[in-house]
Amino acid sequence: MSDRTRDPLADASSTTADPAPDDPARRNFMLGSLAGAGAVALAGLSSSALAQAQTAPTRTTLSHHYVPASDKTVHWGYFSKQLKPLVEVDSGDFVTIETVTHHANDDADRMVKGDPGVESIFYWDKKRKGVNRRGAGPEDASLFGRGAGEGLGVHVCTGPVAVKGAQPGDVLEVRILDVKPRPSANPKYRGKAFGSNAAAWWGFHFNDQIEEPKKREVITIYEVDATGESDTARALYNFRWTPQTDPFGVVHKTIDYPGVPVDHKTIKHNWGVLKNVRVPVRPHFGVMGLAPKEADIVDSIPPSYTGGNIDNWRIGKGATMFYPVALPGALLSVGDPHAGQGDSELCGTAIECSLTGTFQLILHKASALKGTPLQALNYPLLETQTEFLVHGFSYPNYLADLGAKAQSEIYGKSSVDLALRDAFRKMRHFLMTTQNLSEDEAVSLMSVGVDFAITQVVDGNWGVHAAVKKALFVSS
Amino acid sequence: MSDRTRDPLADASSTTADPAPDDPARRNFMLGSLAGAGAVALAGLSSSALAQAQTAPTRTTLSHHYVPASDKTVHWGYFSKQLKPLVEVDSGDFVTIETVTHHANDDADRMVKGDPGVESIFYWDKKRKGVNRRGAGPEDASLFGRGAGEGLGVHVCTGPVAVKGAQPGDVLEVRILDVKPRPSANPKYRGKAFGSNAAAWWGFHFNDQIEEPKKREVITIYEVDATGESDTARALYNFRWTPQTDPFGVVHKTIDYPGVPVDHKTIKHNWGVLKNVRVPVRPHFGVMGLAPKEADIVDSIPPSYTGGNIDNWRIGKGATMFYPVALPGALLSVGDPHAGQGDSELCGTAIECSLTGTFQLILHKASALKGTPLQALNYPLLETQTEFLVHGFSYPNYLADLGAKAQSEIYGKSSVDLALRDAFRKMRHFLMTTQNLSEDEAVSLMSVGVDFAITQVVDGNWGVHAAVKKALFVSS
Repeated sequence: MSDRTRDPLADASSTTADPAPDDPARRNFMLGSLAGAGAVALAGLSSSALAQAQTAPTRTTLSHHYVPASDKTVHWGYFSKQLKPLVEVDSGDFVTIETVTHHANDDADRMVKGDPGVESIFYWDKKRKGVNRRGAGPEDASLFGRGAGEGLGVHVCTGPVAVKGAQPGDVLEVRILDVKPRPSANPKYRGKAFGSNAAAWWGFHFNDQIEEPKKREVITIYEVDATGESDTARALYNFRWTPQTDPFGVVHKTIDYPGVPVDHKTIKHNWGVLKNVRVPVRPHFGVMGLAPKEADIVDSIPPSYTGGNIDNWRIGKGATMFYPVALPGALLSVGDPHAGQGDSELCGTAIECSLTGTFQLILHKASALKGTPLQALNYPLLETQTEFLVHGFSYPNYLADLGAKAQSEIYGKSSVDLALRDAFRKMRHFLMTTQNLSEDEAVSLMSVGVDFAITQVVDGNWGVHAAVKKALFVSS
Repeated sequence: MSDRTRDPLADASSTTADPAPDDPARRNFMLGSLAGAGAVALAGLSSSALAQAQTAPTRTTLSHHYVPASDKTVHWGYFSKQLKPLVEVDSGDFVTIETVTHHANDDADRMVKGDPGVESIFYWDKKRKGVNRRGAGPEDASLFGRGAGEGLGVHVCTGPVAVKGAQPGDVLEVRILDVKPRPSANPKYRGKAFGSNAAAWWGFHFNDQIEEPKKREVITIYEVDATGESDTARALYNFRWTPQTDPFGVVHKTIDYPGVPVDHKTIKHNWGVLKNVRVPVRPHFGVMGLAPKEADIVDSIPPSYTGGNIDNWRIGKGATMFYPVALPGALLSVGDPHAGQGDSELCGTAIECSLTGTFQLILHKASALKGTPLQALNYPLLETQTEFLVHGFSYPNYLADLGAKAQSEIYGKSSVDLALRDAFRKMRHFLMTTQNLSEDEAVSLMSVGVDFAITQVVDGNWGVHAAVKKALFVSS
C-alpha cells in the first residue's frame, strides 16, 4: 500500500480537512441528502421546548466541510486544547466526519486492508507508527512500557473542528443528520462492514466469570450490512486474546494498548458463535464532545461535562447534542464509532465499527441564552426525535471534582449510585429550567414519568441517563 | 356506610373469595374478555423460547375465580406463609383479583368514599381499624408506637391464592390478561380513577432538595381516565404533608404509617400543578409474588427471589411472570397497584392507584422442568410481548443472604452497583440456559444487545432489570 511507505511527517503541512469537495459527485450527493435531513431535524426541534434557544442560521449560503480520517486528521486516545483545528466552520455549517474504530486491528483483513485512511492510522513497523501517541500517558512510555501515551485513553478521534466565534459559556448544538457504516475496503467483503466487541479486563463481568479459564479476554467479530438493507448485525467468530507482540517488540498479554495488530496465526477462531442471534444495529458515536479546559491532555475514556465518551447508543442519526463550550473555538472531536450497544456496555466495548457521520453545528452565544432553557447549561444534553435525555456521571466534572490526580483516581471512585445521583440532579434542573416546573412538580414527574437507565459502567466515570418523552409536554 | 358499622369479626368465617360469580352479567363479561386475552397470551408465548417449558392445561373446563378486595381478603404490609389461602385454584385456572392502593386515604373523597370494599379496608375509628395490622412489625406497636405492624411494610395485598399441588421447586407462571383502573365510587367523579404520588422521606431525592423548606414530603394527586379512552394521566393538585393525627390519637409527622387518613382541612391544596404535562398510563402491579419460606412474616417492601415489590412498570397487561415456588400452594398475593411509574421510582412511590387484574395461573412441576429453560429458576422472570427481563436486586434473597436481622439491615445495605451485579449474573444465566449460549457468547451479547436499567431505588432491596428483545433470537 502506498500509504504504508510514505513518510507522514513529510507532508504534515498539507493536513487538509477537505479532500472530498474535489470530488464533485460525492459532494453533490452529500448536499442532496443533507437538504432533506436538515429540514427534518429543524422541524423536529421547532416543536420542542429547546427551540426557544435555537439560533436559526441567518446566512443564505451554508458550507459543507468534509473531514476524512487519516493519520493526519486523528488524535488517538485523548482530547487536548492544544490541538490545532483541522478546519474552522461557521455556525450553521455542515461537516461530514469520518471516524475509525480503534479496534480495527482485531481483524485487519476485514477492517483495515485496502482502506488508505485506516491503513495510515494503523500503520506500524519496526521503526514507526502512523500515529505514535495513543493515550494521555507519557509519550516515552516510561510509566508502563506499553507504548507512547501508554493506552491511557484508547479512542481514535477525528478532529478537532473549530467553530468560529465560539467562546466559553456558549453552547454548541450538534445535529447528527446522517450516520453510515464504513464499508470494508477489502474486495473479498464488498458491501459489508465489520465491528469488534472486546470482552476485556475493564469489563464489569471480568472478575466474575464462571467458565474456565477465568479472567479471559474474548474478541467477537460482528458483520454489519454496509448497504443499509439489514438493520441487524450478526456475529461471525470469536477468539480468546493471547499475548500479542507489537512491531516494536512489546508483548501485550492483555488488551492494554490500542491498535496492537492481532496476529491471526496465533489465535483460535471459533466460527458460528451466536448463530441464532441478530443484534439490532444502532449506529452511534461513543465519543463525541468538546475539549475540556481543565488539563492540557485528557484521557479519552472518562466522559465529562463537555461530553466525550458518553457511550449512549441514542447519540445516532436524528439526534442532537448540546454541549457547554469550555474553550475558544469549541474544538469538537468525534470517534469511538459503534454499530450497536446495549445500555451499560457491560463487557467493556460495543460493536466497535468505523462510521461516517454528517453533522450540522450551531453555535448559541451565551448572550443569546439568557432566559432560555440553555442558559448556563453545564452538562451534555441529548435530544432525540422522541425524548430528551440528560447524562449523569459519577463525577459530573471529574477533572475539577477530583483535583490534580483526577485522571488516575477516577478509575477507582466510580459507582452507579453516584451517577444516578447526578442524573437525578440534572433531570431536575432540566425540568425546572426548560419546563418551568417547581421542584415538587419535577420530583413527582421524575418518579412517575422519567426512566433512569445505566449508560455504561466501563468508562472510568460511570454513567446513568434519564430520559423523558417529549410527548409528556403539551403546549399551554 | 353499612360497611363502617358492621363488626368485621362477627362474620370472619364468611371470608369468601368469590362474590362476583353471583353476578351473572359481570361473570359473563369477564369470561368473554378472557377468551380473547387468553388466546393472545398463549400465542405470544408459543413463539418464545420459554414455551419449551410450558405445560398446556389439559383440562377441558377451566374455572374463573374472583377475589374482591375487602378487609377480609387483604393482608396489609407483609407476606406470610401462615396466611390461610382465600381460594385454591387448579393450574390453568383464571382468577380476577381486585387490588387497592395503600395511598387511597391521601384523598379519601376520590379514592375511598362510596366503595364498600375500599371503605372496609380503610375503616378506622377511635376503637378499631378495618385492618389492624399494617406491616411486619410488632402487633402492639411497641417498637415505634406508630401502630400495629409499625408500617414496616406498607402495601395492601390481596390474597393469598393457593395453587393446587404446588410444591417448593416448582415454578408458577402468572399471565396478566387484563388490568383495569378501579373507578371512583363517588358519584362526583364518575368515569374517573385517581392515584396518589408521595414524594416521601424514603425517596432518593429526599435529602437532596434545593427549595425551602427542605426535607418536605409532598403528595400529588393524579387523575386517570377509568373508561379507557385516554392513556395519559394528569396531575390535579399537590400538598405538603403536615402532621396528621390518626383516629387512635397518634400524630404522624411524616408518612410513617400506611392508611393514615389525611384531614384535608389541615393541608393547603396547590391546584394546577404539572398543568402542561400528560403522564403515560402504564397500569401494573408494584407488588406481585409468592410467600417466601425464610420467615413467618415478611415486610412487603423489599423484593426478593419470589417477587413481591419489584416495582417494574412492565408487569402489566400482556406480561407474564415466572416465580420459583417456595412453599406448598405457592401462595400468590397481589397489591401496590400503580397507574404509572418511571424506571427508578425516584421519589418513593408511583401513581398509586387501585386496579383490578385478571390472571391465568399455570403451575410447572419441578419434575417437568428438567432440561427446560425454567429448571432451577431461582429469580422472578418477566416475559412481555416483546422482551424477556430479569430482575436483579442488591441482595437476590436478602432474607437468607443477610441472616437473622435481614429485615432491618437490608435498608442500610443496598446499592445500584450490587443490583447491577445481580442483574448481570441473572441475565447471563438466562441466556446460557434458555438460549444455549456459552458464557463468552452471553457476555458479548449482554454488552451489545441487552439494556440494563434502574427498576427502583426506594424499596430497601434496590433493583436493576436487564431486558433483551425476543426479536434477537431467530429459530435455528
